[in-house]
Amino acid sequence: MTMYGNWRSAAAFRVRIALNLKGIPYEETFIDLDAGDQHKPEFRAINPQGAVPALFDGDGPPLTQSLAILDYLEETHPGVALLPAEPRARARARSLAQVVACDTHPLYVPRVRTYLMEAYALPRERLMDFVRNAFTTGLTTLETRLSAEDGTGRFCQGDAVSHADLCLVSLWVGTGIFGVDTAPFPTVRRIAETCLAEEAFAKAHPLRQPGAPR
Amino acid sequence: MTMYGNWRSAAAFRVRIALNLKGIPYEETFIDLDAGDQHKPEFRAINPQGAVPALFDGDGPPLTQSLAILDYLEETHPGVALLPAEPRARARARSLAQVVACDTHPLYVPRVRTYLMEAYALPRERLMDFVRNAFTTGLTTLETRLSAEDGTGRFCQGDAVSHADLCLVSLWVGTGIFGVDTAPFPTVRRIAETCLAEEAFAKAHPLRQPGAPR
Repeated sequence: MTMYGNWRSAAAFRVRIALNLKGIPYEETFIDLDAGDQHKPEFRAINPQGAVPALFDGDGPPLTQSLAILDYLEETHPGVALLPAEPRARARARSLAQVVACDTHPLYVPRVRTYLMEAYALPRERLMDFVRNAFTTGLTTLETRLSAEDGTGRFCQGDAVSHADLCLVSLWVGTGIFGVDTAPFPTVRRIAETCLAEEAFAKAHPLRQPGAPR
Repeated sequence: MTMYGNWRSAAAFRVRIALNLKGIPYEETFIDLDAGDQHKPEFRAINPQGAVPALFDGDGPPLTQSLAILDYLEETHPGVALLPAEPRARARARSLAQVVACDTHPLYVPRVRTYLMEAYALPRERLMDFVRNAFTTGLTTLETRLSAEDGTGRFCQGDAVSHADLCLVSLWVGTGIFGVDTAPFPTVRRIAETCLAEEAFAKAHPLRQPGAPR
């Protein structure tokens, strides 16, 4: 498969992990989000939303939205499961994933940061208050749930990797990039570190991709 | 089933539509988001995120996050499908749904609006610029894709209702609540009106729920 991504994109990171876990070979073309390459006509023709990732599987149209791609990979490559089989466990894994992929990450993507800075003439440090609040709110929900709910195991849902872990790790890595205090989130830390010790996660890490700062 | 919701919540609206389409009887308890009832300890015990909807199916723990709930209902009540069978069509329906449920709706929920107003001392009209920009950005993506992609039919994905339509309608109805100009989005309008002509959608409409303005 081939995909358009970016080293820093949390959504592209999730898809890289899934491809690695399922053993699917892929090549990634990096879109320079800081240079605005996502808005160029040639990329808008691929994804009118101007967002990464966009994944190509053979000749079909591009697949977009990271959670939709995870489900597509699950349905077409069922070998290594990224969701548990039991409906309530699946729902919990999806719910935890969506705390990140719906309610947290979309708040701090370049599109939103640029809008806030320009519309409200915010200096960078004031904008970062909003970004860090988004992280902290999402991490607080994850920590509260993961530390209290019976479903938590070695990973977010039991002892097997699921969508929830891919999303959790993508948020966790962002705390370093954006300078978020992670001390209040020991359960999130434990699971993130457990994941990142695995090769499928480690080699998908943003800082190991082309274009990342050294 | 029983659920905690709110008349205005786009996420609760999606779940009501799904329950109606699948013919699942339910009772909804309304959480007053303007009064901050979602932050009270008794509701935080149900959903630590302080967000609706939360759905109870029998004795199990609450199900949260609207897209996770839609998948749970699909897996436990497969009768009336809310996703097509073919993986690429499923992925497209999910991707369109996530344009709304991930990249658009989370930007204008009460939690975010309150933060922006308080942190940046924004008057209501200035905040509404951000809210309307979120709507317009999401609607522009939907319109561009729905008007150009082969998959579009009577509904977002072909001629059957899917997650994408539930999310599209939940965004569409919000344009009225938040005063968003919908003239540039004729394809979105056509599909929204097609959906809202169906009883399962119409009776789930926010303005037909307890607590809504007359």
